[in-house]
Amino acid sequence: MPDEPWRASLDHALERNRLSPSHRFVQLATIGLDGRPAVRTVVFRGFLGDSRELIFTTDARSAKRTELERVPDAALCWYFAETREQFRFSGVVRLVDVSTAEARFQEARRDVWRGLSNETRASFAWPTPGAPRVREVAFPTTPPDPDRPLDDFALMIFSIREVDHLELDGDPQRRWRYVLHDHGRWSTREVNP
Amino acid sequence: MPDEPWRASLDHALERNRLSPSHRFVQLATIGLDGRPAVRTVVFRGFLGDSRELIFTTDARSAKRTELERVPDAALCWYFAETREQFRFSGVVRLVDVSTAEARFQEARRDVWRGLSNETRASFAWPTPGAPRVREVAFPTTPPDPDRPLDDFALMIFSIREVDHLELDGDPQRRWRYVLHDHGRWSTREVNP
Repeated sequence: MPDEPWRASLDHALERNRLSPSHRFVQLATIGLDGRPAVRTVVFRGFLGDSRELIFTTDARSAKRTELERVPDAALCWYFAETREQFRFSGVVRLVDVSTAEARFQEARRDVWRGLSNETRASFAWPTPGAPRVREVAFPTTPPDPDRPLDDFALMIFSIREVDHLELDGDPQRRWRYVLHDHGRWSTREVNP
Repeated sequence: MPDEPWRASLDHALERNRLSPSHRFVQLATIGLDGRPAVRTVVFRGFLGDSRELIFTTDARSAKRTELERVPDAALCWYFAETREQFRFSGVVRLVDVSTAEARFQEARRDVWRGLSNETRASFAWPTPGAPRVREVAFPTTPPDPDRPLDDFALMIFSIREVDHLELDGDPQRRWRYVLHDHGRWSTREVNP
């Protein structure tokens, strides 16, 4: 059973919102290469063993990969529409790509790849994301091998250090802050919404 | 008719997603006081005259207000679940609070205040957001005067400089980038999703 004091609330939200098609959509904020904030939607792909690490995927050629290599600090906003609650996470992202040596990370990369749809796997063979669209260039649709991740398939492992959990239902609303301290223990405090 | 080449797409998305209770929920990313990214959900309250300025509200005592006073650069992510499309905006936020002199901004502040629900208006009389919750301190529920904004009611006027519009439906997906140049004109380019 995980030690994280916020984990039961997150599991509960995932369970209660599971029928909503977008309940795994999370907004990831980074520092852009120009030093300004950047934010986009990513899809939650599960926990990496240790329960405070969240897995997301990225194309290795995308802007967010370059941004996170430069500044690994990031933030997440996860709004659950059915239960009207929001989790905000602060933490650090570790990139796992084709060149990562550690076996447990490559294993996670293969596992997540296997769990993707054929359409999503095929998108990692598309032309470079964000580059000008050239009409003549094809977007391959042939499903890649489900057992062999394409080279541009990468994981973002988001390691959580702070949590802000807001429940909009309730009168008044309720809000908690959780902070991971250097000695590895979490503090919990209820704060004003 | 607005000049912004992306505005028709945004209006269309607002119209087509209007039955979804969260279609006005947008994620606002800022630079935290510690220099790390921060992101939270805010509610779109309309356009300010000029069509590239989006209005949001904030409590003047909130962290985002302090963050934006220090670094006005910000980013927005607006995901429309029904039509499966995402708008990402980069820009600068101007704060409008009780001390703002310009008449047109105070007028907007009063207009937005009038348009809020009684419950939302009452929340601006609550104890300081993010401060430790003290059980004995009351959360006032008496509706404030709808014609007289409370002192802690502030607007964030988000002035858009760059837009990234992604349509997930379609085979393949489609994506456009719009950039505002110094001479006041927008460039439009279709890019790879």
